[in-house]
Amino acid sequence: MADQSPKLTRIGLAGLAVMGQNLALNIAEKGFPISVYNRTTSKVDETVERAKREGNLPVSGFHDPKAFVNSIKKPRVIIMLVKAGAPVDQTIKTLSAYMEKGDCIIDGGNEWYENTERREKAMAELGLLYLGMGVSGGEEGARNGPSLMPGGSFEAYKYIEDILLKVAAQVPDSGPCVTYIGNGGSGNFVKMVHNGIEYGDMQLIAEAYDVLKSVGKLSNEELQNVFTEWNKGELLSFLIEITADIFGIKDDKGDGYLVDKVLDKTGMKGTGKWTVQQAAELSIAAPTIESSLDSRFLSGLKEERTEAAKVFKSGGFGDILTDQEVEKGKLIDDVRKALYSSKICSYAQGMNLIRAKSIEKGWDLELGELARIWKGGCIIRAIFLDRIKKAYDRNPDLANLLVDPEFAKEIIDRQSAWRRVVSLAINAGISTPGMSASLAYFDSYRRERLPANLVQAQRDYFGAHTYERVDMPGSFHTEWFKLARKINN
Amino acid sequence: MADQSPKLTRIGLAGLAVMGQNLALNIAEKGFPISVYNRTTSKVDETVERAKREGNLPVSGFHDPKAFVNSIKKPRVIIMLVKAGAPVDQTIKTLSAYMEKGDCIIDGGNEWYENTERREKAMAELGLLYLGMGVSGGEEGARNGPSLMPGGSFEAYKYIEDILLKVAAQVPDSGPCVTYIGNGGSGNFVKMVHNGIEYGDMQLIAEAYDVLKSVGKLSNEELQNVFTEWNKGELLSFLIEITADIFGIKDDKGDGYLVDKVLDKTGMKGTGKWTVQQAAELSIAAPTIESSLDSRFLSGLKEERTEAAKVFKSGGFGDILTDQEVEKGKLIDDVRKALYSSKICSYAQGMNLIRAKSIEKGWDLELGELARIWKGGCIIRAIFLDRIKKAYDRNPDLANLLVDPEFAKEIIDRQSAWRRVVSLAINAGISTPGMSASLAYFDSYRRERLPANLVQAQRDYFGAHTYERVDMPGSFHTEWFKLARKINN
Repeated sequence: MADQSPKLTRIGLAGLAVMGQNLALNIAEKGFPISVYNRTTSKVDETVERAKREGNLPVSGFHDPKAFVNSIKKPRVIIMLVKAGAPVDQTIKTLSAYMEKGDCIIDGGNEWYENTERREKAMAELGLLYLGMGVSGGEEGARNGPSLMPGGSFEAYKYIEDILLKVAAQVPDSGPCVTYIGNGGSGNFVKMVHNGIEYGDMQLIAEAYDVLKSVGKLSNEELQNVFTEWNKGELLSFLIEITADIFGIKDDKGDGYLVDKVLDKTGMKGTGKWTVQQAAELSIAAPTIESSLDSRFLSGLKEERTEAAKVFKSGGFGDILTDQEVEKGKLIDDVRKALYSSKICSYAQGMNLIRAKSIEKGWDLELGELARIWKGGCIIRAIFLDRIKKAYDRNPDLANLLVDPEFAKEIIDRQSAWRRVVSLAINAGISTPGMSASLAYFDSYRRERLPANLVQAQRDYFGAHTYERVDMPGSFHTEWFKLARKINN
Repeated sequence: MADQSPKLTRIGLAGLAVMGQNLALNIAEKGFPISVYNRTTSKVDETVERAKREGNLPVSGFHDPKAFVNSIKKPRVIIMLVKAGAPVDQTIKTLSAYMEKGDCIIDGGNEWYENTERREKAMAELGLLYLGMGVSGGEEGARNGPSLMPGGSFEAYKYIEDILLKVAAQVPDSGPCVTYIGNGGSGNFVKMVHNGIEYGDMQLIAEAYDVLKSVGKLSNEELQNVFTEWNKGELLSFLIEITADIFGIKDDKGDGYLVDKVLDKTGMKGTGKWTVQQAAELSIAAPTIESSLDSRFLSGLKEERTEAAKVFKSGGFGDILTDQEVEKGKLIDDVRKALYSSKICSYAQGMNLIRAKSIEKGWDLELGELARIWKGGCIIRAIFLDRIKKAYDRNPDLANLLVDPEFAKEIIDRQSAWRRVVSLAINAGISTPGMSASLAYFDSYRRERLPANLVQAQRDYFGAHTYERVDMPGSFHTEWFKLARKINN
């Protein structure tokens, strides 16, 4: 392996864990010669070897950061795919030492958007451009076509737009899954919410599985068939597809199916948490996404749950409280409708969170365009996103996806099934936190009069927080205590 | 009004909005001469006049900060009751200019705990001590006995322990509602979670009201009777008491009851938001508290809700979907049980959040002692807190209130009613987000096997995040895609 390449490459990539390797190979395969670098140099050699093996792709490897930077055509663009936080700062420090005015660094990790904005400012002082680019699709997407969410310097975006348009997933009729998101940390923020939505999708699918398995007593084989069937209709999506796959995998270390041997503890990496915290910050109700995060937290308490199960079993609780008779075909149909309706709520929450942030930051984000670039490449890719895009095409100022005429009609058609599934789960003693939170969200949102009047009256009673009235303008305070006790002032 | 007091006072108070005035009068009434100061000087005169009117209480007013500080006996202690954030910094700056080594400032506002820790450090550099003290009880509590949560310098706490013990609410058999909470910002943090729990309590009561009114068709008079009755039993609490009061107040601006004229929009001031964000930060599931925050957010979207109600009404939705026949007596009994069970879940979440933070920060907080000081004075005061204290007395390391033998038994006795109420609400098309989130929390926590295995399998499928197994130790990764497609490596 030579540390000099005969000709300058078009772009560089630093950070060669699997995601980085795959994205580099993807770029090279699309005809853009690429330089690659990694602090642990064995990864460099590994990448170059893979490039040879996977079709003699134009990948030049470098062990030395200076030679790496110098191998790239000016203005130089380098994509980093390293762990968010301190490693990003370290990599920037290493690379920027050799970069020149007008060059650009792109962070392709799941970075907190404010870190990107801080770095963009620091880079600007050096005359360097900066992008925070969400990359979704996992390892497979990185290799064969991810969804890309670049935000930050528009000038820098333009340098590599031709590359991104070819590297991104290509969706028939709607084009490559990339668009310039907006200024500052908007690319990271949008990717963060994408991940929050992904948490929601996964939780809702897990609940559908739980109801079908625990109440409907479906076998893994039946579950595989159900999800395969679902993947032909309104739920068609990557996550439904892989769920069908999962139910078909036998355990190679024992009898039966592998899914039954997987421990019921879910890990997480931070973007779901940030989504929930940002929703709270921006006063956006996001109960479906919150429930998915909480479910991951509770899944982690395996030992506590085992103990709690004992406590309540001895109190008369079975695993399932009632052995309700259910008609399988009807149940499957109901669960599909409950899952779909809940999914609409979850996306409504995510989209409204993005809009709230866009307004706060002046990012001017286009929600329909975001739905478009999520149609391929990323983990939440689904036929459903086309409906969302169309909803925003019909009305870019749509207050909430729930009231789009098409979605409203779909919910009206499905709401009885949705209520049946959540009730059934409640009476079976299993939890469907995501589906029930979604239903509560829907029923709150479509309700002209909520019992919030009582809460506001309480606040005025004990804290003199005042209240508004339904029948006249103004702000009012009442001496509730004195009136109730008939005390005169 | 004189700017000199003949004798030095025992303590000072700065910030004379209603809370500050009332706390100052409370302290004076307990026999501690107090100096008071406010930037807007009319408030000073107002306070001194009130002190005269309310029994010639020993309150000395000052228009000048220097004279104010000098009027207090050394080591000087000054309580601030000003708006959190910048006004606190401003007040500290004003007062500390005249304070001396060993003097102490106490922030009695709802401050973000990290601000208190920052200020404590800055003050230490000046040789000054600092406390962040949560004060709960609203205006009435401040005047007649609040619950006090002082955290920070133990030395400073000791200066005024005698005052706080007398000023705090007094609860027979369990003493004054104050204790030294712990180091740093622990007093603010505990107060923050107290407020989060308060949000949960208020939301659950609002849902009980909604079910009784919307499904049970109870009149305000009946509601008043129900809440009055509830306030004699397990739900006995300040919030249930004031709710009963509220239903009895007639509208002085028109016909009927005032509660029906109050607009269904709930305000908020930040502590609920922080609680939810901290729960996410510390990996603590807090769905009941989250649902209460989300409900406030959704209540604020009155215009959107009105529009959404129209959309779904035309789709066949009534205000209430079904006119279910319910037996009032039975419904009231069920709702009481659902409210109580949900409340246990909400407090379990809050307590576990406090414990998680205490471990992270090394605060060494005593959960039972916190329950004790919340028994009186504060907004969430309730007979129920005595049961929580006893649960932690029985077992200070209790993993979750749900598995305390007494609480477990109470839930076992109530769970059928709880499920009936949530199902009924779902089928009536109204939302009980807090009660249903609580039930899902309970059903997840007491479940040995959750469907989280599927989520973890999905994560391993698309992101190689690995998984554990139920039957052997270790971390595993499977090439799900290749196995499903029968692709050989």
